[in-house]
Amino acid sequence: MDISQVIKQRRSIRSYREIELEDSKLNRVLEAARLAPSANNRQEWKFIAVKDKLLREKLAEAASRQYFIAQAPVVIAACATESQSVMRCGQPRYTVDISIAVSFMLLQAAELGLGTCWIGAFDEARVKEILKVPDGIRVVAITPLGYPAEEPGPRPRKDFDQIVCFDVYK
Amino acid sequence: MDISQVIKQRRSIRSYREIELEDSKLNRVLEAARLAPSANNRQEWKFIAVKDKLLREKLAEAASRQYFIAQAPVVIAACATESQSVMRCGQPRYTVDISIAVSFMLLQAAELGLGTCWIGAFDEARVKEILKVPDGIRVVAITPLGYPAEEPGPRPRKDFDQIVCFDVYK
Repeated sequence: MDISQVIKQRRSIRSYREIELEDSKLNRVLEAARLAPSANNRQEWKFIAVKDKLLREKLAEAASRQYFIAQAPVVIAACATESQSVMRCGQPRYTVDISIAVSFMLLQAAELGLGTCWIGAFDEARVKEILKVPDGIRVVAITPLGYPAEEPGPRPRKDFDQIVCFDVYK
Repeated sequence: MDISQVIKQRRSIRSYREIELEDSKLNRVLEAARLAPSANNRQEWKFIAVKDKLLREKLAEAASRQYFIAQAPVVIAACATESQSVMRCGQPRYTVDISIAVSFMLLQAAELGLGTCWIGAFDEARVKEILKVPDGIRVVAITPLGYPAEEPGPRPRKDFDQIVCFDVYK
């Protein structure tokens, strides 16, 4: 499938089949993160693939009780191992780097027929406690990963002309 | 080309052929951003595609004098039209949303044989001045977009086991 097809078809999946995910597929998704670019190629990241059911349930609880998260056979927590640097443009480097890596995983997963859902609504302190994440490490995003149990309808998007302009801001 | 191939082959491109980019290709890249997910599907973004040569030269100047940026026939500036919201996990929503959209563009561009280079080293105030970006709008990232004039070598990555762990942080 080419990338534009994957991008067109990808949806955030909020219902998962409770069946195992093959390690080969999980590894391909994690590999997409490994190969993502990062500022100065620093790769200051760590990806926790949570398979343990009890831990997944605790994560769902900590993520505003979005219980569908625990339905998925794997939950990935994307962590930044360095979080002090700010880019010259003013953006935190770690937030950007981890977001790129997770974006790559979303698309790789979609191509493999797997669902994901970017979760930003979670209690970071509680997630760190559950996953024994050391002080100084930030958890930037989590996503369930597994086989979709739903085919969500189309998500409306703004028109091209509304979000694109040329040469100067309009 | 499948996504894992694109991800494997993609490199940050720092040298561009000074030839025009077809609008059909530019539009496909921008379309990848349009279809990207965002928190609550808010799509609080605007993408400025800069073709004007003088403006591109000014942008390169404002981006720590990385003059290769202006070689590319198009420079895309990715802007957030809302930048106050913070997700429950503590991350700024706009930084994440724009990073996802730009990530999707990087991969779509790579599939089309086009080069990009995520630029975070720029003077945001100066870029806003050049592109007439209103107060309250943030410029999160810029990237040149065009045909590569180089085939950069492989970029080393950490080993899989160094950046992946299971169930809890290790």
